[in-house]
Amino acid sequence: MTSSHPSLESIHHSVRATNPLVHCLTNSVVQEITADVLLAVGASPAMVSHPEEAEQFAAVASAVLVNVGNPDPPMIDAMRSAVKVARELGTPWVLDPVAVGGLTVRTELASSLVYANPAVIRANASEVINLHAAVTRTQAQGGRGVDSTDCPESALEAASALAEITGGVVAISGATDIIVSAHRITKIRGGSELMPLVIGTGCSLGAVVAAYTASTDYYHDAAVAAHAAYATAAEHAAKHSNGPGTFHAQWIDALYASLPNMAEIEES
Amino acid sequence: MTSSHPSLESIHHSVRATNPLVHCLTNSVVQEITADVLLAVGASPAMVSHPEEAEQFAAVASAVLVNVGNPDPPMIDAMRSAVKVARELGTPWVLDPVAVGGLTVRTELASSLVYANPAVIRANASEVINLHAAVTRTQAQGGRGVDSTDCPESALEAASALAEITGGVVAISGATDIIVSAHRITKIRGGSELMPLVIGTGCSLGAVVAAYTASTDYYHDAAVAAHAAYATAAEHAAKHSNGPGTFHAQWIDALYASLPNMAEIEES
Amino acid sequence: MTSSHPSLESIHHSVRATNPLVHCLTNSVVQEITADVLLAVGASPAMVSHPEEAEQFAAVASAVLVNVGNPDPPMIDAMRSAVKVARELGTPWVLDPVAVGGLTVRTELASSLVYANPAVIRANASEVINLHAAVTRTQAQGGRGVDSTDCPESALEAASALAEITGGVVAISGATDIIVSAHRITKIRGGSELMPLVIGTGCSLGAVVAAYTASTDYYHDAAVAAHAAYATAAEHAAKHSNGPGTFHAQWIDALYASLPNMAEIEES
Repeated sequence: MTSSHPSLESIHHSVRATNPLVHCLTNSVVQEITADVLLAVGASPAMVSHPEEAEQFAAVASAVLVNVGNPDPPMIDAMRSAVKVARELGTPWVLDPVAVGGLTVRTELASSLVYANPAVIRANASEVINLHAAVTRTQAQGGRGVDSTDCPESALEAASALAEITGGVVAISGATDIIVSAHRITKIRGGSELMPLVIGTGCSLGAVVAAYTASTDYYHDAAVAAHAAYATAAEHAAKHSNGPGTFHAQWIDALYASLPNMAEIEES
Repeated sequence: MTSSHPSLESIHHSVRATNPLVHCLTNSVVQEITADVLLAVGASPAMVSHPEEAEQFAAVASAVLVNVGNPDPPMIDAMRSAVKVARELGTPWVLDPVAVGGLTVRTELASSLVYANPAVIRANASEVINLHAAVTRTQAQGGRGVDSTDCPESALEAASALAEITGGVVAISGATDIIVSAHRITKIRGGSELMPLVIGTGCSLGAVVAAYTASTDYYHDAAVAAHAAYATAAEHAAKHSNGPGTFHAQWIDALYASLPNMAEIEES
Repeated sequence: MTSSHPSLESIHHSVRATNPLVHCLTNSVVQEITADVLLAVGASPAMVSHPEEAEQFAAVASAVLVNVGNPDPPMIDAMRSAVKVARELGTPWVLDPVAVGGLTVRTELASSLVYANPAVIRANASEVINLHAAVTRTQAQGGRGVDSTDCPESALEAASALAEITGGVVAISGATDIIVSAHRITKIRGGSELMPLVIGTGCSLGAVVAAYTASTDYYHDAAVAAHAAYATAAEHAAKHSNGPGTFHAQWIDALYASLPNMAEIEES
């Protein structure tokens, strides 16, 4: 990592200073928490998914999130339109291949979008492995819906291969998060066991990664900063809550508070 | 109730031990709270409603929830596909006939699904009465949208008749919950007046009932255990909150904490 | 303001006493918070958006909300049907022209609905300016999605012009809220900086305004009372929270508590 890379602190501040407008094309279960989380970290959310409007809005957005969890046909059209515009304008966009593998509609969608050069692919280990398998037409590994049945380390090879195709970053979320791009791997340890018990904490991370890529051209660092912010907020919230209900509120407060980094970060 | 029936405690533990995957086809208002509640009680939620994917996903789910609140045409197709697969595989599924009666699309949908043998129908008293009336082509009793204008006792006859058609269980939710199946009626008293002031507490109960039916073949006991868990969590949360906002978070925490039963349960 | 106008207190009490049924046709991001807020202030929410059912349900609703944030084609049909029924029956309805301006589908929809005489148009300053521009075919002023880039004062002229077309009220939400109707302008100061950091606080205000218009024929006073309730709850919640996560819960509690008015209200 050269000295020209931005620090975590400078990336966090840049997001708050520039208030990036994040165009979220995401599943209906997590839209509210995704918007709340973006507001907490200093970004502006907008869920615009009418196919005609998605094309118009992507053109003014600072970043685009495409989360393929449970898309209906008009949403799929909107995603393709938004990605096309983002590519043309050089706007960074993030792909979250939720539960790809056994479900054919989203697997086909996510696989084809890999070739539209997402700045970051954010997923759990099973999704990274399944997405790579789908892209290379090899046998998918299973996985049970949105849950990861694989550990992040096991997805390293698939992540590197995907990063080579996209020319971007692959972020594997898990107990230890691993951020992978050409010639660089960063591990982030921290967080809380309560985080996966709040729906949308993973999906909204994709949106935060998108916001962060809008604030620096160093997408690998942007992904690391977003994951570190999440882990820090989760550690703080776990100390002030008794279960997933109170954790949810405390975690949003902690993201808003921009606490000093509490995650352990290891470069290789 | 014979001694071979599982205890409430054993059912709660079984849900946490087996982490059932609950395929939720439910309305957009309550998707987030439904997922959060399932995670809190130890189950895994998945909202997969693209018609093509719903069929694929129902085949791997431990249980299926069909909540007819505000379905659009593709969702209706997804519900029919998922129920068909669940029946073929013997996977338990739960029907929540939200606001049936005056609204024709959902009333027709719910009425036809009664004949697909849901393990449990979960509803308020007005919905049970209206669903029975729709199924038997008699005059519906009114009811004002999702609110019940009838007391649970008044729906007992309709519930018994529906249970006879499905061969399963009918759970009438209210100030006193009543669980009805052939030769058995169980009443559950407890809860809090704040619970109906949090949107989705009723709808998410349908999902929890589904999770519980995945953990025991005694569906009547599963429904009782789910309702008792709700009432217990609500009583606990009411003591630690000042209104529906803080109640929501405390109630999720209480569901997660698996407190000893605080509801009064009466068999007959 | 004549002495025959209802007091804020009497309007709040009337909502709780009559429990108005609010038919919400609103965007998927804010459906849960909208329902929770309506329950907290004593109203009953129902999101019924299947085009066929929307027409049936509008006929029994006490008030209708049309929020054009991110509508899909069936939702647009449902909105037009519900508004048609509301007009025929004299049921008050509220228009929330979310992010009109650059996005063509919703701009066309909201512009045409202005001529269906909404009791209240509720929006931020940029949306009021853009809606007026769209209705009069003049040049829209921009605006960045759902964020207002204009101050409420700057939208006064557009608001008066829209109120003249509808014969109703236009409520401009902002740091100072301004309620405009023929020969009357009311300013409401209060609230908290945390409120815009919780997604849906603005959108759900449209639903609360709808509930309040169902409880008095004085729609201007209804809008003032709804905005004052919001500002009061926000001031209270800000004192009991550390960020937007805890604010959300405390704010719902405060709306439920029906606190004495804490907002500064200025008539002109």
